[in-house]
Amino acid sequence: MDRALVVLSGGQDSTTCLYWAVRRYGCKQVSSLTFDYGQRHRVELDCAANVARHAGVGNRVLPIDTFAAIGGSALTDGEVEVSADGAGGLPSTFVPGRNLVFLTFAAAYAWPRGIRHIVTGVAQTDYSGYPDCRDETIRALERTLRLGMESEIEIHAPLMHLSKKDTVLLAQELGALDAMRLTHSCYEGRRPPCGHCPACRLRARGFAEAGIADPLLSA
Amino acid sequence: MDRALVVLSGGQDSTTCLYWAVRRYGCKQVSSLTFDYGQRHRVELDCAANVARHAGVGNRVLPIDTFAAIGGSALTDGEVEVSADGAGGLPSTFVPGRNLVFLTFAAAYAWPRGIRHIVTGVAQTDYSGYPDCRDETIRALERTLRLGMESEIEIHAPLMHLSKKDTVLLAQELGALDAMRLTHSCYEGRRPPCGHCPACRLRARGFAEAGIADPLLSA
Repeated sequence: MDRALVVLSGGQDSTTCLYWAVRRYGCKQVSSLTFDYGQRHRVELDCAANVARHAGVGNRVLPIDTFAAIGGSALTDGEVEVSADGAGGLPSTFVPGRNLVFLTFAAAYAWPRGIRHIVTGVAQTDYSGYPDCRDETIRALERTLRLGMESEIEIHAPLMHLSKKDTVLLAQELGALDAMRLTHSCYEGRRPPCGHCPACRLRARGFAEAGIADPLLSA
Repeated sequence: MDRALVVLSGGQDSTTCLYWAVRRYGCKQVSSLTFDYGQRHRVELDCAANVARHAGVGNRVLPIDTFAAIGGSALTDGEVEVSADGAGGLPSTFVPGRNLVFLTFAAAYAWPRGIRHIVTGVAQTDYSGYPDCRDETIRALERTLRLGMESEIEIHAPLMHLSKKDTVLLAQELGALDAMRLTHSCYEGRRPPCGHCPACRLRARGFAEAGIADPLLSA
């Protein structure tokens, strides 16, 4: 029986992916993995746990203390040239490759458990162009993981080519809208969300274009 | 000016690579990175620091608490089917993809520092066939990191196709033999080394075939 592991951040996209996986593999074949990597808003971890419980799947939290150590040094140590826009036009405090690490750890977690399918909410549309969210990157990583772990692992990114509007419509189709009230998007970490930050605006636009009220706002 | 970052474990191979990088890029352009990932023998961290100091390059230690969390669960939680030889013929307690994670973090560390060259001591010869040490895997990872970080990063694995004997000869050629007395190989974590474990035997065979006395044993 095929089993799947969903990388669950507690946000709108990974929640939609969790329901996508439940629909595809069946509730009992799906589990979820959340990374405690020092994210600014700890509320994300609670959201992930609540979403998983709502969907009836397990949720395991794995710690990653490395990003904080890398990021901290980027701000503090003399080795780093902190420039206005950093290398490659991204902020110099940005820790690159975060999704690569998440998916590699997810594969390492899945491997001894005989789980073959990894599901991630990354998308190359509607985003600020983080290169580790692009389809070509995810496909290259899949190949790397298959070679490096001698496994038949598959990375699924169901939202890769969807607009935010289409992601909302997919959530509706999957019966995932009710779970949206448990999710977290706001960059400011506010519940109820601030409504003004880029994440809140992006989310609001998606729901508006889909013609659906965001359950989080009417909760 | 090209700069290089060496992933330094404190063992024989990564030490040789450190001297390879110093020869190629110059001492001032090289730094080293050591991962504190819960390795059984903490002496490795001291060896890495001592080797780096001996070579005149900086050494930064980055923590990774994730492997212990994954590995611990593989032994303790009910989700895992612990089999005699695990999935893929490797022990079920084996955490796969360790080198993939090391190199991805190394690239994430290098990126904001404008370091383009990552050097690793992995080799596909003389080893127990860990798939994440193979050339094809390392090349796939390099491509993934280039795409995922939009960088021109290069992964160098100077020992990839060398036998243990040739690695010892390379160390001699690079003037790295003296540093070998600071390294650590023994699986048992002993100093002086136990001489009986697979790592001690492999090391001894390499030096014997090269016709060179291991400085660690005459230290």
